[in-house]
Amino acid sequence: MEEFIHPDFLLSTPAAKELYHSHAAKMPVIDYHCHLSPEMIARDHQFSTITELWLQGDHYKWRAMRANGVAEKYITGDASPREKFRKWAETVPYTMRNPLYHWTAMELKTAFGIDTPLTPETADEIFDECNRQLADRSARGLMRLYNVETVCTTDDPIDSLRWHREIRESGFEIKVLPAWRPDKAMAGADPTIYKAYINALSDAAGVAIDSYATLIEALQIRHDYFAENGCRVADHGLSRVPWAPVSVEAADALLRKLLGGTQLTQQEADQFNTVLLLDLCRMNARKGWVQQFHFGPMRNVNTRAFKTLGPDTGFDTISDWQAAEQIARILNALDADSLLTKTILYNINPADNTWVAAMPGNFQDGTIPGKIQMGAAWWFNDQLMGMRAQMDALSMQGLLSRFVGMLTDSRSFVSYPRHDYFRRLLCDMLGADIERGLIPSSQLSRVEQMVEDICYFNAKRYFEF
Amino acid sequence: MEEFIHPDFLLSTPAAKELYHSHAAKMPVIDYHCHLSPEMIARDHQFSTITELWLQGDHYKWRAMRANGVAEKYITGDASPREKFRKWAETVPYTMRNPLYHWTAMELKTAFGIDTPLTPETADEIFDECNRQLADRSARGLMRLYNVETVCTTDDPIDSLRWHREIRESGFEIKVLPAWRPDKAMAGADPTIYKAYINALSDAAGVAIDSYATLIEALQIRHDYFAENGCRVADHGLSRVPWAPVSVEAADALLRKLLGGTQLTQQEADQFNTVLLLDLCRMNARKGWVQQFHFGPMRNVNTRAFKTLGPDTGFDTISDWQAAEQIARILNALDADSLLTKTILYNINPADNTWVAAMPGNFQDGTIPGKIQMGAAWWFNDQLMGMRAQMDALSMQGLLSRFVGMLTDSRSFVSYPRHDYFRRLLCDMLGADIERGLIPSSQLSRVEQMVEDICYFNAKRYFEF
Amino acid sequence: MEEFIHPDFLLSTPAAKELYHSHAAKMPVIDYHCHLSPEMIARDHQFSTITELWLQGDHYKWRAMRANGVAEKYITGDASPREKFRKWAETVPYTMRNPLYHWTAMELKTAFGIDTPLTPETADEIFDECNRQLADRSARGLMRLYNVETVCTTDDPIDSLRWHREIRESGFEIKVLPAWRPDKAMAGADPTIYKAYINALSDAAGVAIDSYATLIEALQIRHDYFAENGCRVADHGLSRVPWAPVSVEAADALLRKLLGGTQLTQQEADQFNTVLLLDLCRMNARKGWVQQFHFGPMRNVNTRAFKTLGPDTGFDTISDWQAAEQIARILNALDADSLLTKTILYNINPADNTWVAAMPGNFQDGTIPGKIQMGAAWWFNDQLMGMRAQMDALSMQGLLSRFVGMLTDSRSFVSYPRHDYFRRLLCDMLGADIERGLIPSSQLSRVEQMVEDICYFNAKRYFEF
Repeated sequence: MEEFIHPDFLLSTPAAKELYHSHAAKMPVIDYHCHLSPEMIARDHQFSTITELWLQGDHYKWRAMRANGVAEKYITGDASPREKFRKWAETVPYTMRNPLYHWTAMELKTAFGIDTPLTPETADEIFDECNRQLADRSARGLMRLYNVETVCTTDDPIDSLRWHREIRESGFEIKVLPAWRPDKAMAGADPTIYKAYINALSDAAGVAIDSYATLIEALQIRHDYFAENGCRVADHGLSRVPWAPVSVEAADALLRKLLGGTQLTQQEADQFNTVLLLDLCRMNARKGWVQQFHFGPMRNVNTRAFKTLGPDTGFDTISDWQAAEQIARILNALDADSLLTKTILYNINPADNTWVAAMPGNFQDGTIPGKIQMGAAWWFNDQLMGMRAQMDALSMQGLLSRFVGMLTDSRSFVSYPRHDYFRRLLCDMLGADIERGLIPSSQLSRVEQMVEDICYFNAKRYFEF
Repeated sequence: MEEFIHPDFLLSTPAAKELYHSHAAKMPVIDYHCHLSPEMIARDHQFSTITELWLQGDHYKWRAMRANGVAEKYITGDASPREKFRKWAETVPYTMRNPLYHWTAMELKTAFGIDTPLTPETADEIFDECNRQLADRSARGLMRLYNVETVCTTDDPIDSLRWHREIRESGFEIKVLPAWRPDKAMAGADPTIYKAYINALSDAAGVAIDSYATLIEALQIRHDYFAENGCRVADHGLSRVPWAPVSVEAADALLRKLLGGTQLTQQEADQFNTVLLLDLCRMNARKGWVQQFHFGPMRNVNTRAFKTLGPDTGFDTISDWQAAEQIARILNALDADSLLTKTILYNINPADNTWVAAMPGNFQDGTIPGKIQMGAAWWFNDQLMGMRAQMDALSMQGLLSRFVGMLTDSRSFVSYPRHDYFRRLLCDMLGADIERGLIPSSQLSRVEQMVEDICYFNAKRYFEF
Repeated sequence: MEEFIHPDFLLSTPAAKELYHSHAAKMPVIDYHCHLSPEMIARDHQFSTITELWLQGDHYKWRAMRANGVAEKYITGDASPREKFRKWAETVPYTMRNPLYHWTAMELKTAFGIDTPLTPETADEIFDECNRQLADRSARGLMRLYNVETVCTTDDPIDSLRWHREIRESGFEIKVLPAWRPDKAMAGADPTIYKAYINALSDAAGVAIDSYATLIEALQIRHDYFAENGCRVADHGLSRVPWAPVSVEAADALLRKLLGGTQLTQQEADQFNTVLLLDLCRMNARKGWVQQFHFGPMRNVNTRAFKTLGPDTGFDTISDWQAAEQIARILNALDADSLLTKTILYNINPADNTWVAAMPGNFQDGTIPGKIQMGAAWWFNDQLMGMRAQMDALSMQGLLSRFVGMLTDSRSFVSYPRHDYFRRLLCDMLGADIERGLIPSSQLSRVEQMVEDICYFNAKRYFEF
């Protein structure tokens, strides 16, 4: 039987094969935005079963299983690991054309050397074989297997970064850096949750927060602390992008209102968040960090599921909210004060690809190549068509050659094949362009350089790892 | 001369040909959403000319003719059938790349065995030949020709369903079921029209409607009546999707205002319609029906044409209104009460494809596969690129394998080739995936099953026909 | 070394080659919307260097250079022509997949016969060779080289049209017509700038403007004057599309307010602009002109750059503003009075392609083929994917065959290869359709006619040049 994930998977032209095998495949992985658990890396976690490794926190798979009619018991419930795995195996053949179909096969192949398609018939055999191999394969072992050089986790300002320090001190050869994600400091819907968070932030920073000024003071202390611990990347998750600038005094009044237990209106929250976001971005600029804006998801849209399962369980979705004007205004306000740092814009709705691809061009200032970036296809778009559409939009509106490339955004220690998936697609696209005569074959060495840059060197230079 | 619509039309790979001829082509047609006239089926209507069959109610062709500079006289006016047909024949060569070009050729080929391209030169000959054949070819004959198993028409709650009963009693072997479309009960712009409709509904239900409670009572009576007559599908046409929940008391006040002859503001109409839509959806859930949401068209945008020709004459268009948040809130409100029935979401603007494809995943509850569906490419999108984009978005965000497939949405008895068009495209897409190695050829039998499911079995199971 | 821009560049099928070489390539160029300087044509300007010709006003190249980390000194600053050219040459290899990569190569090839790729290594040699050739190659010479038949420039109502008259009187065999672009008469943000413009308009028209009525009187005088000078095209640049109709009296009050130095609110500006735009469109209709709506760009989003460099320097971007309803209402209001003239709709955000492609169908009145048009891919979309997406959307929703085709929208005398780029793509698309059997090869002569029509004859007939 022909191998599915063979060496030339996705590579349809000779040029694509050459670009991939001689260039892309050799590059180490820089995973500059992920959700790995630093604790699991610090403890070099062993996975008891493939179910733990694969199904414990993967809301992509959960959504597919629910769509396939699988009961929650077998997804997030109390079924046994084997039972859950069998339900996933039942679902896999129904995921044809979905990225999960490829990811599943690639992960089985690269992490476990398994070529057999996962189906109900092969489920038990694959379950047992993976578990057998996992006895010798820890979190760190998986990271080494995939030639990872650097990862950035995603961390709250109140995080002690204890595990990051332990990792560093352990002499682990892969860099595991924290990334600053202060989303919880932004005004949300529930004053009680907000107040609890502000209390925790007060404790972490050693600053009593009772005003906008002290909020900023506390955040700055933690920002400095993150920097001392190797952080050089900030990440801002924005659902609706706010743009409603008010004075610091007004922001202060809104904060007091919120801390006093009053829910802000949408307009008030936008006002507060505009002021705070700009201040957070200024902190990033003063440190020379890269900042990322992830915008557009509508979160926790299923109240029943949120109540029973909590956040990040597969009930977030893509919005069609407008954001172009707000993004332009935010970048402009920062640029006007010369406090616009390197910035990556990630949109969740691919209908926004073209305007997002055009936006960086308005704020490139000639200091470094690709200072403002369109981010890689993200979350719902992290698949062949999404990645292609993002790279096509970027190519048409900007400089693909300066793209800092792929990230996993994942909680999983076997998600690195997504880098490989991306690289194969990139090489296939460029190979097709060469074949069609859109890129002259005389310039092949520059294309080779572009591939290595996008897969590795651009990120290394941009993030200054 | 080479045939245009030959057996392998649209099928570019061996795998595509095999999938189509051995699987797709053999499946009966379930047309679960159309606008056929039940009366014409009951009376087994004979068409006097191809002009009647083709041009009498087809606003797709009308729009093309107008765009081609044809005067209204030859479109909806008093020109003779032959003159109108000639004008259409003049237009056809100018429709290259438009779906009408393929539909025209496919309909001539499949209904009349005519290979000759329709052009001004061949117009008279084809007109005469089609008319000759139509002498022996009634409405039912056309439905039989296309291997139709079940159709659902589109019916107003006040409809007596007389023709559906006559069809059933006649022993016609093709199931012709009503579908419930209560759009006129939603608050629109004109209180006079609304009041007239409510009066008619009062009569049909035998309930004097003078309050929100009696409106619901009347609708429930008709909903029950539709169910008794075999209905199991509801359809809700939404231009702007409303989401402005208010109390039943507030809805009651708004209804009284409207029945009193006062036009509601947009905000008031949204409030009333939110409450009513949720109640209508609850009725659907209690019956276990499938409900469809068709959203986004902007209707009757040409006032001059509306005044002279009325609705549904080719002057509706695609809006860019936002709808994601509203759709999420509606589904969530129903789900929260466990009254979210099987639901299909159809968007009119293909820029919305990705968020619409992602939306079902938030409300799949593991009870049946594909409980919430992204609907087939609809109306303006019912063409090669639109269908491909819809299936690609669905594939990337959900489970294509669970898709209930195509429908005609048509008033025409020769529109069934659109099912064939869809099937060919589906097989061509899957064949290309196999050829490119995106689906392993070892899994061919599962692809074959997927094709049969999407063409037929999924709909049969989902709608419980 | 294989040529990059060879005769069959972009043409991948035999049918595409035949369509291009025997039909498309032979057609003259009608460039019905550009930003060429009439003065430079009148004076038959000589370019001192390729830097002047290429880099002096080209914000596409500027944006690419900024994105590549080039300092402003080498873009709009005081570096020497050779230095600037070198920086551009450094950037070119990084533009692979961007249209600039192809445009650069095509312009070097067609204007200068240069095949060598522009890179840092070849920069000086190419700089010298181009400058040598430019000694014999004036503005008019370049226009002749590209087989241009007619161009329409873009002119303000206050323009004297002196240079257009001089060109006409000089007996230049290429028609250079003015186009009417009254954007500055629309209410913008700054009352001081507005008042200064209105004063200039008063002078140009010889009418003291102190009311809405006198504003219209002045504009009508200039409209007449433009018509006397050969104008038959109007162009309306709209960022947000306004739709907020008020009475003429209200518009009059708003104008007085504005002229009195008070900034209008967004709502007030929309009201004034709605009234004025409709009146301007009525003027166009009475003359039988073609009117163009270019909508959606968000302009001057970078305040720092605007202050130092001014407008049109590469800091405009794509918005995601909604426009469908407004466009429909505007066209409807004009149609209702039988004052909707031939109209072309250009969207800046390609996410809008489908609704824009569908919109004309609502207002085609059967008088002339393609009376209402979807415009060619514009500005940010003027590239392979953008042009393909525009033609695909148009094909699916309307009649590609009636499309008036390409324009440059450019300030450059060597931008005509964009017509060639478009034509090659068009032929490649149609050739692929023939090859795939989507268009029957028996209808080849009609496809040939379609190609010639789209490249030339449709525009000639439509604009009545």
